[in-house]
Amino acid sequence: MRPYNTEIICVGTEILLGHITNTDARDVSEMLSRIGINVKYHTVVGDNPERLRACVEIARSRADIIITTGGLGPTCDDLTKQILAECFGLKLVQNDDEVRFLREYIRNKRNFTQNNFQQAMLPEGCTVFHNLWGTAPGCAFQAEGKIVIMMPGPPVECVPMFRTYGVPYLRSLSDEEIVSHSIRVFGIGESAVDDMFADEMNVMVNPTMAPYAKECDCLLQVTAKAGSEEEAEAMMEPVIAHVKERLGDFVYGMDVECIEEAIFPLLKEKGLTFATAESCTGGEIAKRFTDIPGASSVFLGGAVVYTNEVKARLLGLDPEMIEEKGAVSREVAVALAEQVRRLTGADIGIGVTGLAGPDGDGVHEVGTVFVSMAVEGKTFVRALSLGPKRTRSYIRRMSGNHAYDMMRRWLTGLSVEEI
Amino acid sequence: MRPYNTEIICVGTEILLGHITNTDARDVSEMLSRIGINVKYHTVVGDNPERLRACVEIARSRADIIITTGGLGPTCDDLTKQILAECFGLKLVQNDDEVRFLREYIRNKRNFTQNNFQQAMLPEGCTVFHNLWGTAPGCAFQAEGKIVIMMPGPPVECVPMFRTYGVPYLRSLSDEEIVSHSIRVFGIGESAVDDMFADEMNVMVNPTMAPYAKECDCLLQVTAKAGSEEEAEAMMEPVIAHVKERLGDFVYGMDVECIEEAIFPLLKEKGLTFATAESCTGGEIAKRFTDIPGASSVFLGGAVVYTNEVKARLLGLDPEMIEEKGAVSREVAVALAEQVRRLTGADIGIGVTGLAGPDGDGVHEVGTVFVSMAVEGKTFVRALSLGPKRTRSYIRRMSGNHAYDMMRRWLTGLSVEEI
Repeated sequence: MRPYNTEIICVGTEILLGHITNTDARDVSEMLSRIGINVKYHTVVGDNPERLRACVEIARSRADIIITTGGLGPTCDDLTKQILAECFGLKLVQNDDEVRFLREYIRNKRNFTQNNFQQAMLPEGCTVFHNLWGTAPGCAFQAEGKIVIMMPGPPVECVPMFRTYGVPYLRSLSDEEIVSHSIRVFGIGESAVDDMFADEMNVMVNPTMAPYAKECDCLLQVTAKAGSEEEAEAMMEPVIAHVKERLGDFVYGMDVECIEEAIFPLLKEKGLTFATAESCTGGEIAKRFTDIPGASSVFLGGAVVYTNEVKARLLGLDPEMIEEKGAVSREVAVALAEQVRRLTGADIGIGVTGLAGPDGDGVHEVGTVFVSMAVEGKTFVRALSLGPKRTRSYIRRMSGNHAYDMMRRWLTGLSVEEI
Repeated sequence: MRPYNTEIICVGTEILLGHITNTDARDVSEMLSRIGINVKYHTVVGDNPERLRACVEIARSRADIIITTGGLGPTCDDLTKQILAECFGLKLVQNDDEVRFLREYIRNKRNFTQNNFQQAMLPEGCTVFHNLWGTAPGCAFQAEGKIVIMMPGPPVECVPMFRTYGVPYLRSLSDEEIVSHSIRVFGIGESAVDDMFADEMNVMVNPTMAPYAKECDCLLQVTAKAGSEEEAEAMMEPVIAHVKERLGDFVYGMDVECIEEAIFPLLKEKGLTFATAESCTGGEIAKRFTDIPGASSVFLGGAVVYTNEVKARLLGLDPEMIEEKGAVSREVAVALAEQVRRLTGADIGIGVTGLAGPDGDGVHEVGTVFVSMAVEGKTFVRALSLGPKRTRSYIRRMSGNHAYDMMRRWLTGLSVEEI
């Protein structure tokens, strides 16, 4: 495939007002990068014909593929089809199949007015993408050397529509495959990873490699283009092996979104379960894990023990010990992990106690956190100083990542405490 | 203020690859729309000097304010400052305060390399925004009739930086105040709210009013422009009173971000505490509440009881009752709320059990959830059918909103069960 440059134009004043997040651009971009199409620009513009027209003119001057989202519906400010057709000298014509579909649909709906039929007006000669997730059809056409694809705006329609119709439409134009893998890393920062590989990355052409920072960890993305998927994979293999060797224990997974996603199969494979006793993270570790469908096969549950009294009442911690050592202490962390393990019967007990801020306790610095993991015969503790300048959200998330990292290291036979 | 048109340029190949969602653009847009600045375009461009330069040229041709996010860090592909300075004919000069800060910072860090000092190079004569949430400073300058503001890319830095420095910087340029309030609503959808006020909204000029849908609730935003804040407030007062009266019990708060934020002061005021027993929400209700700094004054803790065995072991639920009624049942919801209340000594016990999906249990439809609230002498239950087509994330979040809504209604003397 020649290197098709793509611009995604999202039409919607509500995005510019900050009322909704532009997830369509991300989701479409992700699908495109998987098939090796380079997205060079995202543009968001409001429901305004002149500004949209100007944006389309800019896009055709710098991109080969223009993908629009939004502005296909029946309300008066939906104007994407009109403007795009006009910019490429095409007429809108009524599509009989879509009219039939709308007539059928209308029978079961109140509030369906005449202007809904505007949705069936499509650029002459286009490929129609029937919308199985809503009513406004999408479409694609090629004109003046450009490829134009239009998708509805609501993410519940745009994403399955682009997957079902957009991706196959574009794939059919290409004879090249682009494949990429992300190597996820915890315990070392993006700039250190960048330093480690900068010399190599600067001279790489295909495959390429780039580090990206995430909120509490980072990743290294490796991408190759080739005539087939197998060929691309083969080109990446030695690069990935080299990166994994240099990064060693810091690598927690490949092509996963977060560390808990990497732990899940490890636990399943070994038939082990875990439970959590959370003070400063307040349920975040449990919440994150149960975001994963099927989590119940390895996660039993746990306790959120925000106050000292509840630490004693729910988990049976000794109030005198808490008093003596302080709620934020290695000893309390140990007791949390051991007690929740014992009470739930889990193989692994996780405990967290610390100061997430913004207020301190007069003793510890904000960001002081003890994360513990109790397993048969042994309890590990990490004492963290996550820094008083970090947000409450960062401290909580990072504490969770450490808990998961301790599990990962123990499950894969690595040393657990130091990092 | 003259109608400043704004373009937000987000720099980052990872956004174009679909690896991250562009939340910065949304968050900055939202803050700008609150102070009455019109965002006309969002542009995303990769870490490429030529393309960024071209985007800046387009932006200066169509906007008065250019706000960039990303590309201020130390890695080799961070180039926003260089390009923006160059486009406006400014040199980058070393900022001594920032160098001192980085020297100080470096002492406590491994992995801090020489290229980090590049962060202290800033456009000559700019206003420096010291980064309290990371290391790369932001800045602002005015040149050639344009206002330029640069912010770091990571949302945990960009959002507080823009709030702390960007918004006051822009406000100081204006002699008009724009003030807005959001009236948050739960239990009635955006289109119903829209219907209710459509006729009025269409003819309003100043103040204006607009409804917005959020993930699991909605809001009505009222905005006024005037010579002073007091004047703007006075203009909005009757509008807000009218809206509140028409929406009645559905209004849960003003200028809050979420329903839990509205519950917090109600609980504090009455000196009441609560605890949670969560099955399908898996800790999400506790997590959300403990996102609020100071949550410990009213939230005691709770249990995440994902499996039946842990429901019995941690909270003492009768295994036979669970067996007989099923884990997803009104009876289990009641027992969860009552038991967690009893065990923790909280004034209010919250229980949730249900099917968040995507897999069903062969008995209930995905989205079936029982939310319960136990208070002195009475336990309330809401039986919800949140719909099999909804995502796991929506079902979990919505269940939490119902739990909070039950507390809100009870705390304010409203009927609790029906909605």
